[in-house]
Order: sequence, then structure tokens, then C-alpha cells
Amino acid sequence: MKRIFNRRTSGLVFKLVRMFIICLVSLFCLLFCSKPSDRQKDASTYAIVIHGGAGVRYREEMTSELEKEYLVELEKSLMAGYEILAGGGNSVAAVEAAIRVMEDSPLFNAGKGASFTRDGINELDASIMNGNTLRAGGVGAVRSVKNPISLARLVMEESPHVLLVGQGALAFAKEMNAEIMPDEYFFTERQWNSLQRRLKEDIPYGGMLPPEKNDSVTSGKSYGNEDLYETVGAVALDKDGNLAAGTSTGGRVKKRPGRVGDSPIIGASTYANNKTCAVSTTGLGEKHMVLLTGKEISSLLDHKGLQLKDAVHDVILKQLVSIGGEGGAISIDKQGNIAWAFTGNGMYRGFVKPDGKFVIKIYED
Amino acid sequence: MKRIFNRRTSGLVFKLVRMFIICLVSLFCLLFCSKPSDRQKDASTYAIVIHGGAGVRYREEMTSELEKEYLVELEKSLMAGYEILAGGGNSVAAVEAAIRVMEDSPLFNAGKGASFTRDGINELDASIMNGNTLRAGGVGAVRSVKNPISLARLVMEESPHVLLVGQGALAFAKEMNAEIMPDEYFFTERQWNSLQRRLKEDIPYGGMLPPEKNDSVTSGKSYGNEDLYETVGAVALDKDGNLAAGTSTGGRVKKRPGRVGDSPIIGASTYANNKTCAVSTTGLGEKHMVLLTGKEISSLLDHKGLQLKDAVHDVILKQLVSIGGEGGAISIDKQGNIAWAFTGNGMYRGFVKPDGKFVIKIYED
Repeated sequence: MKRIFNRRTSGLVFKLVRMFIICLVSLFCLLFCSKPSDRQKDASTYAIVIHGGAGVRYREEMTSELEKEYLVELEKSLMAGYEILAGGGNSVAAVEAAIRVMEDSPLFNAGKGASFTRDGINELDASIMNGNTLRAGGVGAVRSVKNPISLARLVMEESPHVLLVGQGALAFAKEMNAEIMPDEYFFTERQWNSLQRRLKEDIPYGGMLPPEKNDSVTSGKSYGNEDLYETVGAVALDKDGNLAAGTSTGGRVKKRPGRVGDSPIIGASTYANNKTCAVSTTGLGEKHMVLLTGKEISSLLDHKGLQLKDAVHDVILKQLVSIGGEGGAISIDKQGNIAWAFTGNGMYRGFVKPDGKFVIKIYED
Repeated sequence: MKRIFNRRTSGLVFKLVRMFIICLVSLFCLLFCSKPSDRQKDASTYAIVIHGGAGVRYREEMTSELEKEYLVELEKSLMAGYEILAGGGNSVAAVEAAIRVMEDSPLFNAGKGASFTRDGINELDASIMNGNTLRAGGVGAVRSVKNPISLARLVMEESPHVLLVGQGALAFAKEMNAEIMPDEYFFTERQWNSLQRRLKEDIPYGGMLPPEKNDSVTSGKSYGNEDLYETVGAVALDKDGNLAAGTSTGGRVKKRPGRVGDSPIIGASTYANNKTCAVSTTGLGEKHMVLLTGKEISSLLDHKGLQLKDAVHDVILKQLVSIGGEGGAISIDKQGNIAWAFTGNGMYRGFVKPDGKFVIKIYED
């Protein structure tokens, strides 16, 4: 009887232990074997990172009033994106909203504060990419459009194309009822004065010479001047684990009409892929265009398994510099890690995560 | 005396042996430790690969007369590049010359044989890249220019920019005395009929719908039709071990004016880097633009150490297809290895190496 009881008990104990192990394994699988996007969704990890260009004034030329103005606008931009993400909105909408704030500000070279071509007109470049669908839209050398980033989104979502330029892009904007502004809207004293100053220089195109004559665009003199590397951009991760990136600019001061820089080119500036990361660049567009900076950062994650920070540092501080480029990039990966880098004296930039703490910087960390 | 002689002799023998070893090591170094470009120069390895687009007629629709016409033009294009390379010319010149032949032929959708926009005009896209300097030039949505590939080369070599579009690109062409042709020059019955046929279709933009409605552009019906994936391109390796790539097209039939495809975008279509390879693509531009096909093939060599053939197959037959893309690519690496791939029923293509044997194909190998 005792032996039977013992046999029964040990059988029961064995069954209980087996059930316990099965439960434990199931729990482990539930916690750690779910898809990354599910984990991110559960963890409500989200964030937005912005930049207002790597062309910042020398610290000694920056007044405290002006610095405050920049900080206020950067916070406003971050807030626009943050509110969307915190409310469960998607990363594409957050990126668009954050960039619109900077486009509407005269402080940044995008939208309202756009630079002038050598002919004294404003031609705008922008692009946006959805890291979930790998769809993208861009506009290049387009005039009169108040928010080029929104037009880029319309190209992505309402057309079968990726890039529309010039008058064709403006025609599309009108068809889509995008907001059109008169030339005066885009006039700012700061950009006009910058053009006049650059026109007086002996060197063409805002310091840019054909590569045979001067492969690196900037002299020590002009390096760090605020009118050379101005762009705005944003990258975001939403609660659903989807990445997005966007970039907008008036381009390089004194550029030739019809010149398209890196900002509307997917992979050169803007790049987003849920598999890896989202990137937006600033700086000398022509160098980002041959380096494919956005795509290269993503490739280092994808093909070499680098961490985001290492990839951004490698591409901006080594690869870009090695081909005579200057500028910076902001980025975020699918886990919500944030990284940025720049070659000059500063970059208008900031980020915010679910804790709602706004981190905003202009010069070195 | 004998000992002195012996000491002298052995000293002499030692010196002779030492000199022999030094000579041997020097010879070894000369043969095996020289830079790859020097080796290639010694070996006179050079080659050019061309494509005339992955949009080819179904075999049953191809007459033997027409097939012969294509083969003749492809051989003429290869010959133009081959003569330059064989004579010690550089890969950029070879790529330009080969593409000019196809641009001047009414058979291919580039230059003279360019497709029409939905408004019945010809807007041309092209780009070129020098794998040695990593400089590049491109033109997008430009009218009236006889040889867009030559204008792209002028952008690369005579301007500080990488991409000029629309009227700004045309103004640059005129400044540079590039050959300008009247609209009639670009008229071909074939392309006009193609536009009229596509205009009658209910679906906009030559089968392209906004991605929400139809992410993949082609139905089984239109797939393989010759008016959908037409582009021309070339990649070359010269005797100095320098790579170059170029691409030119009239773009997709019935496209929206101002639409820029992948052909003028560095990294999307054209890419050349002496470190890795040179690539030119054809097919649905919007997919190449988000995949960054040219750069991705290069990255797989650079970051994963893949062989060229494996990289091209992975990117075209797997990655491109996985995002709903269709088309093809030609490529050559720094060792002179050649690889190509395409998703459809064929691709006008060919190559020639120092042996002077022209390999030209249209359908499957």
C-alpha cells in the first residue's frame, strides 16, 4: 500500500514538475521569443530625433537671444512629433509634423527660411520614407510650396513615383491642393544677406568649385559658417515599432537653379527601414549623394551587425571625411537607440523619448 | 693562404647568396605585392558590359529582322567602348561612348528613341560615375539634349554638383555647348504608338498606380512588354584598373512630367567604386530607388565579402523581387569579373573582354 502510494505520489510529482517546466518554457517563449515589433509595442518604446542642420554659428558669434530662439523652435518641433507618437500616431506623421515646424520657422534653411539660388529664387528639396512599407517620396527644385515635406509625403502616398522635380512637382502640388505661397513668403533678410555676401566672393556657387579645382568645398574660413550646411530633418520610432525619416532644405546658398542636393534623394540623406534604422543627414549634399550616407549606415547594421552608434560614427566621422565631405546625421534604430554625429563645431539637434524629457543641443555634447 | 682564400671565397659566396635572396624577394614583391591596379595594368585586364533594358519583346513577337537590328546596335555600342579601352582610354570615356551609340539609336528608350510623358514630351534622365574619384554627375527630366550621358559627364567634371534637373539642366547644357536638338528629333513612331496605347488604358502612368492600390506595377499582361523597362547602361574596367558606370533613359512611358526615375540617381541605378564594382540597372525605377540597387550590390561585396555574381543575384532575384520590383542589372568588379541578372523574359545585353570576342544576348542564357 505504501509502495503504491509512493508510486502514485512520485507519478503526481513527476506530472506536476513536467507541467511546471512546460509553463516556465511557455512563459519564457512569450516574453523573449515574440517578434521585435510586438516587444516594442508592449514596451511602448518610441522616440523622435530632429536636426536643424550642421551649419551653426561659431559660439562666439551666437548671441544668447538667438540661441534661445533656436532652442525654442527645436523644442516646438520635438513637441509636435512627440505629441503624435505619445498619442499612438505613426512615425511618418511625427516626422512630417516635426519638420513642418522647422519649415515654418525663418530660423532654418527649409520652407520659409530657405536659401536663395544664385538667381535669387527659392528652390526647395525634401523627402520622406516609411520604414515599414519601404515606400518613399521626394521633391526636388520645387518652388512656392509652403511645406515641401508634406508634398514629399503626398508623392509617397498619392502617386506611384518616388521623385518629382521642378515645375512637374509644383503641378502635382496644385493638383493635391498643397499650400502654395507667393515668393515674398520665402524672403528672409538673413538668407538674402547671405546670398549677397556669397555673390561678392570670387568663387562660384557658395564656395563650390568644380572638383578638379577644389575637391573640398570649404576653406577654413567658411567652415562653420551658418549658411553652408543648413537642412532640417527628423527620424522617429512609433509605438508599433515602425521607423520613418524625413529631410527638407532650401539647399546650398548661391546654388545653380535646378541643382538638386541630397535631401530629396532616398539613401543619400533620408533612409528608413524597419529592419535596421532611420537616418537623416545634413552637410555637403554632393558628398552624401556619392557616399549614400543613409543607406550606408543601414548597411553597416544589416551586413556587418554594427551597433547604431558605431555605424553613424564610422560613416560620418571616417567615410564622409575621407572623401572630403562635411556635415552630420541623426539616427534611430528599431530598438529605439539614438545616435548622431557631426564633423563641424555643432549641429542643431534634439530628441525626446517616452519619459517626455527634451534633450536639445547646439554645440558639442 | 688556403684559409685566407677560403675565408674570402666563403665571404664572396655569402654575399652572392645574399644578393640572390634579395633579388628573389624583390622579384616576388614586384610580382605579387604590387597594388591590384598595377597588376591589372600589367595584365591589361579590361572589359565593357552594356545593357539596352530589361523590357524586351516576347520571343514570339520578335521578328528576325528586328532581332538583327538590335544585335547590330548592341555590337556597335560595345565596339565604341572596346576601342577606347583597347587603346588605353579610361572607363568613363568608354561608358560614355557605348551609351551614346544607344542614345543615338531609335531602337532604345534613351536619347533619340526616348519615351513620351503623358503630355507627349520627352524628358530624359542619365548619370555617370567615376569609380576612381567617386565623383558623379546626373541630369533628370531634361529636354532637348541629344546625349544626356554626355551632359551627365559635364555635370560631373565641369560643375560642383551631382544632379541638375529640368530647365536648370538645360541651361547648363547650353552653357557647356552640349548638342541640343528640336523636339522632332526625339519623335519615333514606336514610342508615340506606345504612349497612345497606354493613354487608352484605364490605369494611369503606364500601369503605375499609387502603391496603396497596386504596389506592383505590372500585371501579367503587361509584363515583358518592351515599353515598360527600357533603359540603356554600361559599366567598364579600364587598363588602369579604374571602374565606371553610366545609365540613360527616357523613363517610363506616360510618366508624369517632372518624374525622375532611378537612372540619374547615384546608388539607385548607376554606381561605381574601385574598391568594389560598377553597376547599371534597368527596370521599375521606383523600386531601385528605395532598394538602392547599385549601392546594395557594392555593399554586399564590401561588407559581406560576397562574390559579384552572388551579390547581383541576391539583390536582383531576391531583394528586388521581395519588394515587388522587376528589372535587371549589369556589373563588373575590379578584377574584371562580369555578372548580370534580370527577372523577366530577357535583357538586351553584351560584353567584350581583351580577346575581342563580342558576347551579345537578348533572351535567357
